[in-house]
Amino acid sequence: MNHYFTTDDITDLPDWLERGRALAQDPISLSHLGAGKTICLLFFNNSLRTRLSTQKAARNLGLEVMVMNVGSDGWNLEFEDGVRMDGGTAEHIREAAGVVAQYADLIGIRAFPGLKDREIDLQERVLKGFMEHSGIPVLNMESATAHPLQALADALTVDQFQIASGQAGQAIPSGGKVPKVVLSWAPHPRALPHAVPNSFLRIFRRMPVELVVTHPKGYELSSWAMGELKPTYDQQAALKDADFVYVKNWSSYSDYGKVLTEDPSWMMTADKLGHARFMHCLPVRRNVVVEDAVLDGSQTLIMEQAANRTVAASLALSHMLR
Amino acid sequence: MNHYFTTDDITDLPDWLERGRALAQDPISLSHLGAGKTICLLFFNNSLRTRLSTQKAARNLGLEVMVMNVGSDGWNLEFEDGVRMDGGTAEHIREAAGVVAQYADLIGIRAFPGLKDREIDLQERVLKGFMEHSGIPVLNMESATAHPLQALADALTVDQFQIASGQAGQAIPSGGKVPKVVLSWAPHPRALPHAVPNSFLRIFRRMPVELVVTHPKGYELSSWAMGELKPTYDQQAALKDADFVYVKNWSSYSDYGKVLTEDPSWMMTADKLGHARFMHCLPVRRNVVVEDAVLDGSQTLIMEQAANRTVAASLALSHMLR
Amino acid sequence: MNHYFTTDDITDLPDWLERGRALAQDPISLSHLGAGKTICLLFFNNSLRTRLSTQKAARNLGLEVMVMNVGSDGWNLEFEDGVRMDGGTAEHIREAAGVVAQYADLIGIRAFPGLKDREIDLQERVLKGFMEHSGIPVLNMESATAHPLQALADALTVDQFQIASGQAGQAIPSGGKVPKVVLSWAPHPRALPHAVPNSFLRIFRRMPVELVVTHPKGYELSSWAMGELKPTYDQQAALKDADFVYVKNWSSYSDYGKVLTEDPSWMMTADKLGHARFMHCLPVRRNVVVEDAVLDGSQTLIMEQAANRTVAASLALSHMLR
Repeated sequence: MNHYFTTDDITDLPDWLERGRALAQDPISLSHLGAGKTICLLFFNNSLRTRLSTQKAARNLGLEVMVMNVGSDGWNLEFEDGVRMDGGTAEHIREAAGVVAQYADLIGIRAFPGLKDREIDLQERVLKGFMEHSGIPVLNMESATAHPLQALADALTVDQFQIASGQAGQAIPSGGKVPKVVLSWAPHPRALPHAVPNSFLRIFRRMPVELVVTHPKGYELSSWAMGELKPTYDQQAALKDADFVYVKNWSSYSDYGKVLTEDPSWMMTADKLGHARFMHCLPVRRNVVVEDAVLDGSQTLIMEQAANRTVAASLALSHMLR
Repeated sequence: MNHYFTTDDITDLPDWLERGRALAQDPISLSHLGAGKTICLLFFNNSLRTRLSTQKAARNLGLEVMVMNVGSDGWNLEFEDGVRMDGGTAEHIREAAGVVAQYADLIGIRAFPGLKDREIDLQERVLKGFMEHSGIPVLNMESATAHPLQALADALTVDQFQIASGQAGQAIPSGGKVPKVVLSWAPHPRALPHAVPNSFLRIFRRMPVELVVTHPKGYELSSWAMGELKPTYDQQAALKDADFVYVKNWSSYSDYGKVLTEDPSWMMTADKLGHARFMHCLPVRRNVVVEDAVLDGSQTLIMEQAANRTVAASLALSHMLR
Repeated sequence: MNHYFTTDDITDLPDWLERGRALAQDPISLSHLGAGKTICLLFFNNSLRTRLSTQKAARNLGLEVMVMNVGSDGWNLEFEDGVRMDGGTAEHIREAAGVVAQYADLIGIRAFPGLKDREIDLQERVLKGFMEHSGIPVLNMESATAHPLQALADALTVDQFQIASGQAGQAIPSGGKVPKVVLSWAPHPRALPHAVPNSFLRIFRRMPVELVVTHPKGYELSSWAMGELKPTYDQQAALKDADFVYVKNWSSYSDYGKVLTEDPSWMMTADKLGHARFMHCLPVRRNVVVEDAVLDGSQTLIMEQAANRTVAASLALSHMLR
C-alpha cells in the first residue's frame, strides 16, 4: 500500500526529480495510469492551490475526481476509540474511512492542526485514521505536521533552477559548488502551522544543497524537521551568498502555537535578498512577510513553485497508483 | 417518465436484485446508458455516502455529473403556490425545477424533513415540486419520508448473504426456510427522521423473509411503513433466532419528531445479536446505538451495505434512463 | 487574449446570433474545441443558472471543469496595491490570479457589487484583477456592472422568436417592422445590482429592435447603459404595442444602491402585458415583480431564456478558446 503521507515516502528522490522533469514537459504522458479509477479529495480546511493542482494532476493521470468539503458537506467525525458518541460527533473515522473506500480507489485529505495541543496535533489523527481504516492509499494534502506536496514542488523548483546537477536550465550559482538554500522565518499576524517548514526541511536535507535555517529565538523547529541542522538567529549572516531564499512564517513549537513576535525587521526585502531567488509556498501577506519589490521582481519563483504543484501531485498519485 | 421516489417505483423486485448481482460483479457494464447525458445532484442537506456513491454510480453509467449544495450555493426556494414572495425566498420551485431541467437530463435531490410539522413533511414538497415542475426524471437521495437508495442497498445486501434463493454466497440460515430479519429501534440523542425505517419496511415487506419490528411504545411507525405488520415491544423476543438485525433510531411518529426516550437498554450488543448478521445504514453513533464489539466484529455487514449503495444507485439511474 | 467581460467583446453580433442558432440545434458540434483544456469557475457569490449552464456549456465544448466557491473554500483576497496585508485578507489578487492560471486555461468569475460605494463597484476590481494578473482569458459570470452571458441569452431568445430577420420561427410582430422591446422596472424588497439591465441595454442597442426603457423617477441607469436612449416614466405608454417585455428590478444608480420605492403598481400583470412576450432573467419573486398569471401563461419565454444560457456560454467560451 503506497501512501504519500510525508516526503519520507519518497525512497529514491533523484528518480522522482528526474520523472518530475519529464512530467513538466509532458503532463499527460501518464494518462493511462488512473484510467477507470477514482480519487476522493476530502477537505477539512480551505484550499486553493492544493484543491486545483491536485484535481488537475488527477485528471492528467486519467483519474475520476470527487471533491468534498467534509466540514460543511458531511458529518463531524469522531477519532477517539471506545468513546460513547452522545455529543457533537455523528460518525466515527472507522466507518467514514471504510465507507469512502467503497467509492474511491485513492483518498486525498487536508486536515490542519488545531495549534492548541501539541500532543494531539502530533498524533495526526485524521490522516492516520484514514490510512489505518480506509485500506486504500492516502494522499496528504497538508496535515498537522507535513505538507509533502508543497515540499516536493519546492524541491522540483530548486532542481529546475540549479546547475549543480548539470541537468536543468537557468543557472544561478556558478562553478561546481552546490547551491545555498536558506529557510528564513518571517513575521505574520496569525499563528501558522509547522507543516510547510517541516516538510521543506525533511526533503531539502536530502537535496544536494547547503541548507541554512534562520529565525528569532523561540521559533526552533522540532528535531524531526531539523535533524543535525542548527539554526542561526542572525538573518543577515544566514542570507550571505544565498542562491535560494525560502521565506515562511510559523508559530512557536516549544511555546506551542504561540506568536512570540511580529518583529517587522524579519520581513524579506529586495535589499536582503541580494542575488538570490525568492521562494514562498503562498498564500503570502504582502509587505508583512515580504515586500512588494521582491514579489514583483524578476528573482521570484513563486509561480514556478505553484506550477510544480501539479507535477508534485502527479508524482505522488502515480506512486500511489503503483 | 421514470422517477425513483420510493421503492414502490420498483415494479419487479426480483429482476432488480438479479441485475444488482450482475452490476456488483461488473460495475461499468452499463457505461453506454448515460453517454451524452447529465445528472444534476442537488443537496439541501449534508451527505457523505449518498453524495459519493451516487456520483460514482452516475460516472459508471457514463453520465456527466454536476453537484450543487442548494442551501449554500443557490437561492432559498419557495414551495407555496400563489404566495407574494416578499420575504426570505428568492426563487419559486416552479422556476428552479424548470431551469435545472434546461441543463440536466436527470435530477437527484436530497431534502430532509423539518420534523416540526408532520403534515408539511408528508407533503414532500421539495421532491414532489421537482417531479411536478422539472419535467425530467427525479432521483430521491433521501427525502422527508423515504430513502429508497438505502433500502435497495439493504435488500441487495440481504439477498447477497441469504440462501433462501439459492443464488448467493455466504449462507447464514440453514435449510429451506426464509431468513428472519429484525428491525430494532435504538436510542439516539437527536431526533431522527423516518425515511430509513419507512423505506426499509416498504422493500422488505416484498422480500422472501420473515420480518419483525421491535421498538419501545410510542415509536410506532406509520401504516404506510408497517402495512399488516404489528410491532413487538419486547426486543429480546423479537431478536430470538434472527438471521439479520437491522438497527436504527427514529423519532416518534405519533408525537411527531419527539425523542421520547434514550433508554440505553435498547442499544444493540454482541450478546443480544447472537449469531445474526448486523446491519446499519450509517452514520452510526458508537456505544449509543450499538456497541463497539458489534461494529468491529465479524458479523457486521455495514461495509457491504455501503458498497451496495453504488449498485443501488446504478439500478435506480438505469431505471430513470429508460 | 479573448476575454468575455462585457457584450462589447462581441465584435460581430449577427455572426454570434447565427452561430448561436446552429449551437442550439447541435450543442456538441464544437466538442473538439476545448479538448485537453481546463476551465476554473470561481464563485464569490451564489449561483444556480450560471453555475449549471456554464458547466454544461464547458463540457459540451470538451473542457475539463473545476468549480470553486472562493468565499467559503479559499482565502479572502486583497485587491489594493501597495497595502500592508496585516488584516483580514490572506492572499493578493496578483498571486491568486497567477496561481489559478497555472492550473487552468480559462477562468470564469462571479463577483457581485457591494452596492455601498459606486466608485469601488465601477472599478470591477475582481474581474479586472483576474484579467490583468492571470494572463489567461476570463469569463464574466456576472460582475458588479455587467452580466454579458444573460444579455447574450436574451438576445438569442428575441432573435429566436422574432421575424424581422425572417430567419427564426414563431413570429409575433407582423409585417416587416422591427419588434418593440420594452425594459420595464419592477418593485423588489432588496437592493439589486445594475449588471442585468446594463448588459441588456448594451446588447439590445445593437439589435434590430425598437428599444424602450421605463422606470420610476430616480431609477435612471448610467449613460454607459443608456447611450442616446431616454427613459419614459409612464409604464403604460411604454408598454403600448410591445412585442417583448423584459421585466427587471434594479436599485437606484444616482442614489447608489438605494431602494427608493417598492410601488406595487409597477408589478407586471397579464393585463399590462397585452400580446407581448414576457422575459425575465430569473430568479424572480412571484407576485412582487410579476404576477403568477404571466409566469404561468403561454407568453412567457423564461425557460427559453434559461435554455439559451447554455448557448450563450458556449459562444463566449468558444470566443475565448480562439
